[in-house]
Amino acid sequence: MDKIVAFLGLGHMGAPMAFNLIKAGFTVRGFDPVETLLQAAVEQGVEKCASAKEAVKGADFVISMLPSDAVVESLYIDKDHLLEVIEKQTLIIDCSTVSARSSKRLINAAQIKGLHAIEAPVSGGVKGAAAATLSFMCGGEHEDVERAKTVLQHMGTNVFFAGPAGAGQTAKICNNMLLAIHMIGTAEALQLGVDNGLDPKVLSEIMSKSSGANWSLQTYNPYPGVMESTPASNHYRGGFKVALMCKDLGLAQQAADHSRSYTPLGSLARNLFGLHSLKGNEELDFSSIQTIFNKEPYK
Amino acid sequence: MDKIVAFLGLGHMGAPMAFNLIKAGFTVRGFDPVETLLQAAVEQGVEKCASAKEAVKGADFVISMLPSDAVVESLYIDKDHLLEVIEKQTLIIDCSTVSARSSKRLINAAQIKGLHAIEAPVSGGVKGAAAATLSFMCGGEHEDVERAKTVLQHMGTNVFFAGPAGAGQTAKICNNMLLAIHMIGTAEALQLGVDNGLDPKVLSEIMSKSSGANWSLQTYNPYPGVMESTPASNHYRGGFKVALMCKDLGLAQQAADHSRSYTPLGSLARNLFGLHSLKGNEELDFSSIQTIFNKEPYK
Amino acid sequence: MDKIVAFLGLGHMGAPMAFNLIKAGFTVRGFDPVETLLQAAVEQGVEKCASAKEAVKGADFVISMLPSDAVVESLYIDKDHLLEVIEKQTLIIDCSTVSARSSKRLINAAQIKGLHAIEAPVSGGVKGAAAATLSFMCGGEHEDVERAKTVLQHMGTNVFFAGPAGAGQTAKICNNMLLAIHMIGTAEALQLGVDNGLDPKVLSEIMSKSSGANWSLQTYNPYPGVMESTPASNHYRGGFKVALMCKDLGLAQQAADHSRSYTPLGSLARNLFGLHSLKGNEELDFSSIQTIFNKEPYK
Amino acid sequence: MDKIVAFLGLGHMGAPMAFNLIKAGFTVRGFDPVETLLQAAVEQGVEKCASAKEAVKGADFVISMLPSDAVVESLYIDKDHLLEVIEKQTLIIDCSTVSARSSKRLINAAQIKGLHAIEAPVSGGVKGAAAATLSFMCGGEHEDVERAKTVLQHMGTNVFFAGPAGAGQTAKICNNMLLAIHMIGTAEALQLGVDNGLDPKVLSEIMSKSSGANWSLQTYNPYPGVMESTPASNHYRGGFKVALMCKDLGLAQQAADHSRSYTPLGSLARNLFGLHSLKGNEELDFSSIQTIFNKEPYK
Repeated sequence: MDKIVAFLGLGHMGAPMAFNLIKAGFTVRGFDPVETLLQAAVEQGVEKCASAKEAVKGADFVISMLPSDAVVESLYIDKDHLLEVIEKQTLIIDCSTVSARSSKRLINAAQIKGLHAIEAPVSGGVKGAAAATLSFMCGGEHEDVERAKTVLQHMGTNVFFAGPAGAGQTAKICNNMLLAIHMIGTAEALQLGVDNGLDPKVLSEIMSKSSGANWSLQTYNPYPGVMESTPASNHYRGGFKVALMCKDLGLAQQAADHSRSYTPLGSLARNLFGLHSLKGNEELDFSSIQTIFNKEPYK
Repeated sequence: MDKIVAFLGLGHMGAPMAFNLIKAGFTVRGFDPVETLLQAAVEQGVEKCASAKEAVKGADFVISMLPSDAVVESLYIDKDHLLEVIEKQTLIIDCSTVSARSSKRLINAAQIKGLHAIEAPVSGGVKGAAAATLSFMCGGEHEDVERAKTVLQHMGTNVFFAGPAGAGQTAKICNNMLLAIHMIGTAEALQLGVDNGLDPKVLSEIMSKSSGANWSLQTYNPYPGVMESTPASNHYRGGFKVALMCKDLGLAQQAADHSRSYTPLGSLARNLFGLHSLKGNEELDFSSIQTIFNKEPYK
Repeated sequence: MDKIVAFLGLGHMGAPMAFNLIKAGFTVRGFDPVETLLQAAVEQGVEKCASAKEAVKGADFVISMLPSDAVVESLYIDKDHLLEVIEKQTLIIDCSTVSARSSKRLINAAQIKGLHAIEAPVSGGVKGAAAATLSFMCGGEHEDVERAKTVLQHMGTNVFFAGPAGAGQTAKICNNMLLAIHMIGTAEALQLGVDNGLDPKVLSEIMSKSSGANWSLQTYNPYPGVMESTPASNHYRGGFKVALMCKDLGLAQQAADHSRSYTPLGSLARNLFGLHSLKGNEELDFSSIQTIFNKEPYK
Repeated sequence: MDKIVAFLGLGHMGAPMAFNLIKAGFTVRGFDPVETLLQAAVEQGVEKCASAKEAVKGADFVISMLPSDAVVESLYIDKDHLLEVIEKQTLIIDCSTVSARSSKRLINAAQIKGLHAIEAPVSGGVKGAAAATLSFMCGGEHEDVERAKTVLQHMGTNVFFAGPAGAGQTAKICNNMLLAIHMIGTAEALQLGVDNGLDPKVLSEIMSKSSGANWSLQTYNPYPGVMESTPASNHYRGGFKVALMCKDLGLAQQAADHSRSYTPLGSLARNLFGLHSLKGNEELDFSSIQTIFNKEPYK
């Protein structure tokens, strides 16, 4: 039975994902170039490895959770050459959110070496990682995605098969672009209602039961005080950072550029989140976009 | 028991609403200045009246379903002076989608004459009117809205109390502005996915279970073939017309203008629907906005 | 010879315009409901009148410079009934920026009483008013506009005949919408250049001699330090206020709404200026929109 | 004296540029992989070369006019290795519009080999190329740009020095983004005026003398019939193609992405031109964007 996992990248997302695998009975061998992150993970039961190369030896699964195209490609292909040392029986599962182009390059390079790799970018954020309620949007060979469920099921509740290499990344950025749009739209609608005398709770309830219904409104309401447990009711702390939404909207625009698709609302959403981030809000939750519509000094 | 309803305006929405009241056992006395509409309603059981004035005599409820501020104000106040002849025991329920300013004027004018009036604009479209599944977004005195439920419950499934006069109209246009935004956003996301090789059904399913979830995606999918019963799968026929969405987005912009609120996505949505309508698409369902993103000759 | 002018509205724009007429040898009889404004004008040679009605008696020209539709209509028609007392030989010149609808109402109401009236909204700002370099965008009867030149030539350098009643207002808001668009566009282009290492002066010079050339770039450069005498080089003080640009963009959107025209960039410009004004920048010069693109805490 | 020019890329732009050098007395040795283009140029006096490598031998200047990053980098560096054969006394002048990143790579690679290279993207289009009225926006070493004037002055009227490697490309895309914005803004303003009863010629004249003034309005008016010699008055034929404007707006967005700059109007302009191109208008002049605002069936 597949029991040994190499986990590469033990940051805010990777660490809690790794811990859930440990809870499920897997042996997790970890590496992160940031010593403090690695040490923190070790204290939670991750087996310490001195390098990525050491971690992947003998693993049934290699799971990576990394910040960018450059880091992923450098690790597997261009610099650390992990694909040279990963063994045939191992399944590579890259959970990083990167461009479809980059994912395709990794998966193709793995195939050329006779290895199996899939992409599995996640949605659900830090909370979802901790609670093992992530969604994985997978791209690659169908049987590889099936096999990956062995581990993915312990870190999340949904494992979607989007299509061949790149499809998972595309699904993720389409989803997040749409999320950005209805988050801003929800913020605009709530402020318009409030400015015309409505109670934001009442308006939220009405729209939630009507055709305005959407995830931002119903589960992540951006207006302070409407829902108790949202970042909006906690000074926009926690949650999904503006900086990360900007990253995903940048990937969406790159995809649109590549396919000659046009996304006027998606582009405007990107610019509004970008302008918001310029003013020192990068670390806030993305629902803080609500504040740009307030009649008050900024922040 | 309140049993007599005067129904003013028997068009695409008003007629099926009136029929549902007849089915529920009400006596419906109707008027419409368009003779063919009036005649068609009479054939379904509406009692024919020669004028609005004749219809409202002795009615427990006056329900109006009219196209614009000007028509509503002309009928009740400025030209036909209905408020002069409506009796004290009657409750006026204006279901028209008009500006909050216009609704306030009607309700205030009624109060000055000792009459009771509420606004109750609807969402749900022609289908909802026929199936008695409309939502009513009510503004006015709370007890008047409670009393209105006597009739509203037979025409719809939700009766929301949004607040005082004007609040119902504001809730409606906030909702529809948000609807317009996530409809376009959904169309953009689906086209971006398709242009990058994804199956629109698969992508729709993934986003429906993720943070991109919204009413347009899940119940009114704009991509042809994803859902069987949507206008998108029927050449964008039926449903909620582009022309009506343009009207509601115009009302939203007027409200924003009045309250000095700013709605960048709402304004862009208005312009995109407007440009779409200019090219001969006014009568199509509003989900036809999907077609502006296609790599094909227009229409 | 026409020598007596009644000047109604002696604020930031009206006062310097009146003074230029005095310099040119006209007798100017003035009124403003704000006593301090009236007194200040009197000290510069305006003859003090106790009311608008008193001012217009025996005048060859009545010139008004007022802030809104409501004030203009109240003064001439609805409340002060000036049209009842203005004499047949008098030419009414309304220099206020109002809606085309409001201008048409005034001019038509004047005609019904056998009076002559034109609209003549201005561009050029407080500086242009002081320097007598305003542009007047006139609407009404052609011969009335010709006669108006007797006075307009002493307050400005350009007197344009745009067409019948309303055309002057339309020309003005088309112009100012276009101005808003190329001001923001210029700010975006300059910031993009600077962020990629270019000197804003060099870039401004190159674009000024190329197809990017426009009035904002060449005579009113929004980047601090590029031009010596602009508001941008004086902490965005003076010039044309954000609040006034917001007003004109609101009128443009009303006109578009009325004619079912669509202006995606104009609408977005309106929203960006509006969001900028919400954060406490209403009194700054409109070129301060440059600051929303800076990588610095707001203001 | 520098007299021998190698000209690489003899398409719509390159060919007339080369002819102007021949007229000025230069010996032009040409190459283009498309045989028909090469042959056409030869008939106008270009000396035929069998390859780029052959062309550059002994040249005082190598001028290239190529369509994309990939083609430029392939020719000089990655595939044809031109930098290996170009001689020390030769000055490379790349007139292609490419990304600043690509220009920097070329210029740096040349420097490493002890060669001199500058970027000199042009504005002015096919007409400017034929009439020798192009503008060159140069980046690189200042003395190299000075030396380049020996040839550039015979192909254009302005040679701008924007700054170090990449600065010329940045200046070009800033300029063209601003051009796109005021072209659409001008189209919106003109349509808004016309829809409200104004004559487009009268409105154009008024705005040209007012603060709305810009290059699109004054020299390239997009409304049919306003100016005689514009593409707008010739069914939008000729001029600067929609496809090329889309290319430049794509480069602008890439630059913005790279520098974390935000350009809401620039992004919206990109999307509007893109949507316009999707509907079969790629080959029309870019001022045809006017037609999306017309109340008529598309095209």
